[in-house]
Amino acid sequence: MDIKAYVLKKALEAKEGARAAAKASSEEKNRALLKMAGSLLTKSRELQAANKKDIASAKKKGLSKAMIDRLTLTGKRIEEMAQGLVEVSKLPDPSGEILKMWRRPNGMMVGRMRVPIGVIAIIYESRPNVTADATALCLKAGNAVILRGGSEAVHSNTAIVKILRNAAASAGIHPGAVTFIESTERQAVMEMLKLEGIVDLVIPRGGEGLIRAVTENSRIPVLKHYKGVCHVFVDRDADLRMAEEICFNAKVQRPGTCNAMETMLVDGKIAVKFLPSMIKKFKKAGVKLKGGADVMKFDKSVSALKEGDYYTEYVDKILNIRIVPGIDSAMDHIAKYGSAHTDSIVTEDYNKAMRFLKEVDSSSVMVNASTRFSDGYQYGLGAEMGISTDKIHARGPMGLEELTCTKFIVLGSGQVRT
Amino acid sequence: MDIKAYVLKKALEAKEGARAAAKASSEEKNRALLKMAGSLLTKSRELQAANKKDIASAKKKGLSKAMIDRLTLTGKRIEEMAQGLVEVSKLPDPSGEILKMWRRPNGMMVGRMRVPIGVIAIIYESRPNVTADATALCLKAGNAVILRGGSEAVHSNTAIVKILRNAAASAGIHPGAVTFIESTERQAVMEMLKLEGIVDLVIPRGGEGLIRAVTENSRIPVLKHYKGVCHVFVDRDADLRMAEEICFNAKVQRPGTCNAMETMLVDGKIAVKFLPSMIKKFKKAGVKLKGGADVMKFDKSVSALKEGDYYTEYVDKILNIRIVPGIDSAMDHIAKYGSAHTDSIVTEDYNKAMRFLKEVDSSSVMVNASTRFSDGYQYGLGAEMGISTDKIHARGPMGLEELTCTKFIVLGSGQVRT
Repeated sequence: MDIKAYVLKKALEAKEGARAAAKASSEEKNRALLKMAGSLLTKSRELQAANKKDIASAKKKGLSKAMIDRLTLTGKRIEEMAQGLVEVSKLPDPSGEILKMWRRPNGMMVGRMRVPIGVIAIIYESRPNVTADATALCLKAGNAVILRGGSEAVHSNTAIVKILRNAAASAGIHPGAVTFIESTERQAVMEMLKLEGIVDLVIPRGGEGLIRAVTENSRIPVLKHYKGVCHVFVDRDADLRMAEEICFNAKVQRPGTCNAMETMLVDGKIAVKFLPSMIKKFKKAGVKLKGGADVMKFDKSVSALKEGDYYTEYVDKILNIRIVPGIDSAMDHIAKYGSAHTDSIVTEDYNKAMRFLKEVDSSSVMVNASTRFSDGYQYGLGAEMGISTDKIHARGPMGLEELTCTKFIVLGSGQVRT
Repeated sequence: MDIKAYVLKKALEAKEGARAAAKASSEEKNRALLKMAGSLLTKSRELQAANKKDIASAKKKGLSKAMIDRLTLTGKRIEEMAQGLVEVSKLPDPSGEILKMWRRPNGMMVGRMRVPIGVIAIIYESRPNVTADATALCLKAGNAVILRGGSEAVHSNTAIVKILRNAAASAGIHPGAVTFIESTERQAVMEMLKLEGIVDLVIPRGGEGLIRAVTENSRIPVLKHYKGVCHVFVDRDADLRMAEEICFNAKVQRPGTCNAMETMLVDGKIAVKFLPSMIKKFKKAGVKLKGGADVMKFDKSVSALKEGDYYTEYVDKILNIRIVPGIDSAMDHIAKYGSAHTDSIVTEDYNKAMRFLKEVDSSSVMVNASTRFSDGYQYGLGAEMGISTDKIHARGPMGLEELTCTKFIVLGSGQVRT
């Protein structure tokens, strides 16, 4: 079979699976999730054996240590994967919820009901745990998932999917609900992106290259996360001690994440008071600082900044510092250089807090809190299917609700339109 | 200037306009809408003069009578356009609304705030009234609009936009909030569809060809309406008098609309009782009926149906009739041939009503009501920006809320992540 026909066949299986998954009760879906978790634990050894093949070829190809680490499935990581499935089984089922219902003058009741989206394709790189996580969330919301992982993890993913499908089937879930594209050819993805009307949504998870390629080639709606160039603005009316803690946390607590701060904006009026000890603290933690001449004069370790740095997601212990005249230029900077991911103001001034909250157009806008909180679990969504930097359908951390849509329901008693 | 540069310049103006529109208060936006309405009325003669140019060249090109009618701006139609703007000014402003807010264990408050989407491009055909309607809805929700109308209406649209922009400017709204692409070249649309990151959403309004072309070429999210192949299923437990009224209304009240019924599904158990008088009523109203042999035997005027007919949106006084063994096959038919637009069941049986409501995956699912109600005004949304047959972001009739997205807001008191 050629790739086009292969992908179409898989997608049609998923579509059948979606119709079945949408009808499954919460109990059936939860039972399937728990069986999946159990099977992952029981078959931990087999999984690790499959994973070893991927690691061996990764080493042969000379992949980086970090890549190999992400690829590796230890017993502990398999336990965490299983635990993730158990957690999802405990979350409330979003599908079937009536969001609102109202009565029209003719007596007809009109409402919105939350329903599954249908077939969701997940295109992801290297991390095999995404296979289980994404399956759990899609299934819980009543969707079918089509998984297409990176070629480096193909043995691990194949083994995980086999376990998940068998467990699902034994719990009475249609196997099409967990569909896996084994082909590692790029063309398989391209064919998938043309299947408008069969696949309802594509979520790419991985580097910017993957995401751009998917967006440019997809006829299907895409939910994506480009990058996190996050800011903290330290206002002249900030509690400077609080500001120091928030900025330090936003940069240092886990610099490799998308919600870490990349540029600290400091109100010129308090720069002299705030910067010396803040810079000292960052230096002590090994953060490399960049800034203009006005920042460099505070410490000779600060290196000269180029404009392009403001657009850069370092995902590392590197930080831009910029002194601004006040809140307006801070917000202008964020609008120009930011990625509309997460931005925070530190201030004790109520009106500036409210202005920042209203006017900054980012997926998460914060007052007096670390940007590191921008996360589905930290927000209390109970799960996270990535963070959307789009504005359509989902924006910010995505939980189960973002894997559903709504339909209108009408309860009539014979009404006709005149 | 080449087209690419021209479109980019326009889009950047719109982006500036969007930032300004998002900051405008409800009062400012409403004042602008009322000024727009007033100006349309004052300049009705000028508008009609511009419209005459379009009509003259439409006649020269030999466009159909229906096309020319849709293109024509009479004094009365201009009054209706103005009235539409006044109505939108009366609607509640959706932006800034807090949908939900909750407290996290660390004391941080997390919520979702409804905010404008940004820049919305509307690509539409012939009807000049869309220019004013779309502008009003986009602006009210705090967005900037980029309008690209059909070439047949270019003089009318240019005149309308000039009036709207001047009125907006006099009310203090940034003129970029109402941006118009004068170029009627197809390439202008293609360039627009590449402006990801500047244009946030594209809404094509027109025929299937336009919509497919936009979807296939857009890197920007698209909200679209393909077609309405709507069904009414008359269950064996229906009140047959009610069923007759609903089916008649769904087909005949305005056959040219997307929410009119195209196929009537009749439970075999009541076909003999139901069909004779129903067919008579349809015949009297001039509806051409199609059906299989089992339907043809009820009346010799029923013509033979081909399978392809079940997929067809007639938008005319033509109706397919199919006799089915029961609710399951009715739902299978809808899933296979329908367009997931609007489907209704007529039944007195509670359990079948609930099954149909839950299991039919269409943008509007009804019990005992005419499909013709699937409409923003009829649902009480106060406005309508078309009907989405997509599942992502908006599904079914779109009102003002569908022209917004949400962002997360966090009110902290110094929280950092550990």
